[in-house]
Amino acid sequence: MSDPAPTPPPAARDKLLFTPGPLTTSAGVKQAMLRDAGSWDVEFHEVVRGVRRSLLAVAGLSPDDGYDAIPMQGSGTFGVESAIGSAVPRGGKLLVLANGAYGERILRIAECMDLDRRVLRSDETAPPDAGAVDAALREDPAITHVALVHCETTTGILNPIAPVAGAVRRHGRSLILDAMSSFGAIPIDLKAEGIDYLVSSANKCIEGVPGFSFILARRAALEATGTRPRSHSLDLLGQLRALESTGQFRFTPPTHAILAFARALAELEAEGGPAGRGRRYLANHRALASGMGRLGFVPLLDPALQGPIITAFHHPADPAFRFADFYKGLSARGMIIYPGKLTKVDTFRIGNIGRLFEADMVQLVHAVEDTLRELGCGLPLAPP
Amino acid sequence: MSDPAPTPPPAARDKLLFTPGPLTTSAGVKQAMLRDAGSWDVEFHEVVRGVRRSLLAVAGLSPDDGYDAIPMQGSGTFGVESAIGSAVPRGGKLLVLANGAYGERILRIAECMDLDRRVLRSDETAPPDAGAVDAALREDPAITHVALVHCETTTGILNPIAPVAGAVRRHGRSLILDAMSSFGAIPIDLKAEGIDYLVSSANKCIEGVPGFSFILARRAALEATGTRPRSHSLDLLGQLRALESTGQFRFTPPTHAILAFARALAELEAEGGPAGRGRRYLANHRALASGMGRLGFVPLLDPALQGPIITAFHHPADPAFRFADFYKGLSARGMIIYPGKLTKVDTFRIGNIGRLFEADMVQLVHAVEDTLRELGCGLPLAPP
Ligand SMILES: Cc1ncc(COP(=O)(O)O)c(C=O)c1O
Ligand SMILES: Cc1ncc(COP(=O)(O)O)c(C=O)c1O
Repeated sequence: MSDPAPTPPPAARDKLLFTPGPLTTSAGVKQAMLRDAGSWDVEFHEVVRGVRRSLLAVAGLSPDDGYDAIPMQGSGTFGVESAIGSAVPRGGKLLVLANGAYGERILRIAECMDLDRRVLRSDETAPPDAGAVDAALREDPAITHVALVHCETTTGILNPIAPVAGAVRRHGRSLILDAMSSFGAIPIDLKAEGIDYLVSSANKCIEGVPGFSFILARRAALEATGTRPRSHSLDLLGQLRALESTGQFRFTPPTHAILAFARALAELEAEGGPAGRGRRYLANHRALASGMGRLGFVPLLDPALQGPIITAFHHPADPAFRFADFYKGLSARGMIIYPGKLTKVDTFRIGNIGRLFEADMVQLVHAVEDTLRELGCGLPLAPP
Repeated sequence: MSDPAPTPPPAARDKLLFTPGPLTTSAGVKQAMLRDAGSWDVEFHEVVRGVRRSLLAVAGLSPDDGYDAIPMQGSGTFGVESAIGSAVPRGGKLLVLANGAYGERILRIAECMDLDRRVLRSDETAPPDAGAVDAALREDPAITHVALVHCETTTGILNPIAPVAGAVRRHGRSLILDAMSSFGAIPIDLKAEGIDYLVSSANKCIEGVPGFSFILARRAALEATGTRPRSHSLDLLGQLRALESTGQFRFTPPTHAILAFARALAELEAEGGPAGRGRRYLANHRALASGMGRLGFVPLLDPALQGPIITAFHHPADPAFRFADFYKGLSARGMIIYPGKLTKVDTFRIGNIGRLFEADMVQLVHAVEDTLRELGCGLPLAPP
């Protein structure tokens, strides 16, 4: 024990996180973690039951619609891997639609588990091609499941669900939706679209803290997968069965993150559910887009494709602009933004989700302007 | 959104958790979660670096001993699966030593990943047979790895590491130790024993909150495993490489649980490291054992095998004793104990870990006595 113990950095006040998660959460959500709950205790089981019921309500589902909400320990990626690994049977085949890093990640997950797979890529600034999905499903009867990312957080594009889901339904296959960064703020009709699995996580639009993900699964689909899981930890059906028979997770749950999530769900309801939350995010997005536009920033996406969750902007052409300095200037002003994740063009991203309001976006734009001046950029910026 | 949102149960004060985790944690550990850290931000990277360095220090390792501390999202089981799945190559074979539920769990993890495997079982009240390990390794050259549980939390038995580790070393195989419930309170000499992988979790003896596990891995062993992971989420080498090249987890870290853990590590150091913490737990165990003994409870284990972490007691023979009522009586008195996990005999368990002190154990024994009287049990209890 000769090393100095790590000390969290002193911070007079937390910086605002304009990122797609972890997010700025409410004081109430954080304070809900000032408790130690026994995971074996009935009081905690009641919280878990309530959370699972509320997740169905957020999805607009009633208990007899045949869906279950199943929390899974780990980050969102663990939830996606749990859904893919549990849904696709041995001998099954997965078609992945990829137009960004999270689609590619699903492909990588499938590759690691030696799943038979195929990918349909589209440009990062364009939605998946539903016609190509239709053709692939027609010509390749081995495909059993299709995976789609709803809000591809790489760019902020909102991939339309209906055209893909329609093709999947017509061909009688099963749809897995990564709605990580959209669920809770953008309505998704699982029944109408025929979505068998939807994956999201605690610290996106529901504004909890990170620590677990959750899967909404159509019970009949999940039960048909049988009992030979690919992974003990990520066995979705095993988790559901334990929750139903004992009220417990199979393995130690992140009790504090779950208490925070219960509070976050109550705050979501108080805001008017996904509709109310979606309105706030959209107002955030509009304030950001117009403010950044005035400064001369150019968004990556066509407005028709842009979702309200996160916005990607091109780096400006001004040679005085260096992203690292820009980031630091904003950080010094108490604001954290997000780097780009694209391969072809230089972008940065600004998230609208979490406990952020229109006034925060306006302040961010002011801080952006001040930082650009500090860097010596000419304003308004010249087009990239 | 017609369903009522879940409300965490009102609690004037948290009950004390006499369980092996989640634990009663300190106020400082919980308060460390009242912050929102950006996972991409350098301040948070510093916290993660500090945590990884401190974990090596807790293990008595210096940076040039060739070990790395790698946090992994999910509960302890996820960490075990990550270690097994990453350590044992395709074509490798795992020998599992099982004398309780956690040894059996390792076997199940191996089974789900279709790993070639073999189990050596011993009675739940007896340590593994090192002679049998030696014989198995001699006669079966296909075995590449051996998995041992240190404190088998099912019973509280402390499985001696040295005899098994000696056999593994002599035969040139690799040892994976599940030290979930012992690391941080019971010294383990990874170098001397030749342990290649040690797995533990945030909310056991280090007294953090649940949300992630961590693996101490001998770098040369881990690097020799190559780059074809069985699981994308649980890829240990991938996680290490990302932490080293970018300072970041590959996927969203449980930021709040990590801030809590940094604080928990500082508190561990203030208590005198694993030696100081081990002394407290031992004092807790002694106060519990003598108090329960006076009431007539009979511990499951021979004292020579009993560890200081958790103690299993036989159900008393008195027909007025029903575990469910006993549990409820203690819960009503603000104390949560743990049910048994054995197959053959009826036991319950009492944990000594977390923010619990000798005085708490004494109060628990008083509450046990009051509850037994309430149930109408004769005192002292007749032998089971
Ligand atoms: C669409 C999408 N999928 C998957 C993930 C992965 O989630 P996590 O980082 O929690 O593993 C993210 C995270 O931002 C995401 O936005
Ligand atoms: C020895 C041992 N191994 C593994 C585990 C599993 O850890 P978790 O419940 O966090 O998945 C435990 C939990 O108590 C344990 O005591």
